[in-house]
Amino acid sequence: MDIRNIIKCGERLDDLQVKDLKIIQNPQGFCFGIDAVLLANFVQLNKGDKVVDLGTGTGIIPLLIAGKSEATHITGVEIQEEVADMAQRSVILNKLQDRIEIINKDLIGVENYLPINHFDIVTSNPPYMHPHGLKNTNDKKAISRHEIKCTLEDVIKTASKLVKHMGRFFMVHRPERLVDILTLCRQYKLEPKRMQFIHPSYKKKPNLLLIECRKAANPELRLMDPFYVYDENGKYTAHTYEIYGKESIQIGDED
Amino acid sequence: MDIRNIIKCGERLDDLQVKDLKIIQNPQGFCFGIDAVLLANFVQLNKGDKVVDLGTGTGIIPLLIAGKSEATHITGVEIQEEVADMAQRSVILNKLQDRIEIINKDLIGVENYLPINHFDIVTSNPPYMHPHGLKNTNDKKAISRHEIKCTLEDVIKTASKLVKHMGRFFMVHRPERLVDILTLCRQYKLEPKRMQFIHPSYKKKPNLLLIECRKAANPELRLMDPFYVYDENGKYTAHTYEIYGKESIQIGDED
Repeated sequence: MDIRNIIKCGERLDDLQVKDLKIIQNPQGFCFGIDAVLLANFVQLNKGDKVVDLGTGTGIIPLLIAGKSEATHITGVEIQEEVADMAQRSVILNKLQDRIEIINKDLIGVENYLPINHFDIVTSNPPYMHPHGLKNTNDKKAISRHEIKCTLEDVIKTASKLVKHMGRFFMVHRPERLVDILTLCRQYKLEPKRMQFIHPSYKKKPNLLLIECRKAANPELRLMDPFYVYDENGKYTAHTYEIYGKESIQIGDED
Repeated sequence: MDIRNIIKCGERLDDLQVKDLKIIQNPQGFCFGIDAVLLANFVQLNKGDKVVDLGTGTGIIPLLIAGKSEATHITGVEIQEEVADMAQRSVILNKLQDRIEIINKDLIGVENYLPINHFDIVTSNPPYMHPHGLKNTNDKKAISRHEIKCTLEDVIKTASKLVKHMGRFFMVHRPERLVDILTLCRQYKLEPKRMQFIHPSYKKKPNLLLIECRKAANPELRLMDPFYVYDENGKYTAHTYEIYGKESIQIGDED
């Protein structure tokens, strides 16, 4: 296949530095950030796991999970047609059609097109922000960042429907929403079991969190050692280099 | 008053390094740890605030709050008679009878002896541990450490009864209980507003957390920069020295 036919005008091809994987992104739209890389790194998978990624965007999480694991089937659900189309073309470009399926549908009503209580793993890097005062709710970048098409509750409720008994849900989000995240997860029977805070540096408060929940599990939360993105000299820490591969990959919006 | 009459056989007098305050403790029983000092430091008070400390033990939090603020009336509630008696004698020793009152009662049923929806501030350094498999539930040290006489829910429910509209609740606890803490606080209308994690050192996961809730407030949690007790050489950090005064005070059980 000719790479020129698979990338549309205005789009860019980025190297993910993992098993020669590439991703198509549009620099004018929402590009994946460190959050997605951190989440993919945080997910623990077993061979043959069936995975769903909710709000998959350009497919960054399915691609990274396919690269790092032996998960047999990864489904990415994305409501935005143009963005889902980019994800689909990245899947083809990486010859991962037998392992990754992109579905261009609303995650609300997922039970109409995916089996419930069936998946081993559900992941999500959902929109973080309230849509208060937002002017253009049709803007693609805004839809990726703000709770316009789905709320945090929609994501957690949907994850709970999809995941099987004792299956796991992994999410990256903002610490400001911690109370909502923990109360909603427990409400929808996804018991929070493991959490890691991501700090810009060791002196700063966390600005991201990673959470692992297990369906119908007993309560007991285990906190991980903190993750610092930069060291005191403003350079990536060894941990950051580790998840980004030897060279740092080009990252887009970090919020 | 003769200091020899106020301290009983087997007890010890410790200097709190704050405004010449002293505390009576029994080295055979539960002695206050860094948790209490961190909590007292975390509490923000205004002149004239009315404060209740739930499960006050030997009165460490009322004493430190009296030392650092202009709170006019601080009530410490303690179920254990011997321990409450030590607290009462420390109040007398420090000549703080006009500002601190120790009540030897069960915090369950607090509405029978204290006014509800009345206090500006409620604080608590409650027992952290589940009493599973505990043999001697009459042991004083066990009662201070385990949820024998009251559960986490009892503490939060009681705090919510006491605190006035938009009044604040401050607590120190373990990160393992974070889901319970946040869901119960929200359930009892004490919205979590500010939280700080305490790490043994910057490489280690937090082993304590400080939380401030406000009654009937809007949701939005603000995380603080992390607090590290020790530096990489195993010495107290500047922050730890700051809350302990110039010299480190003698601390007892840290768990």
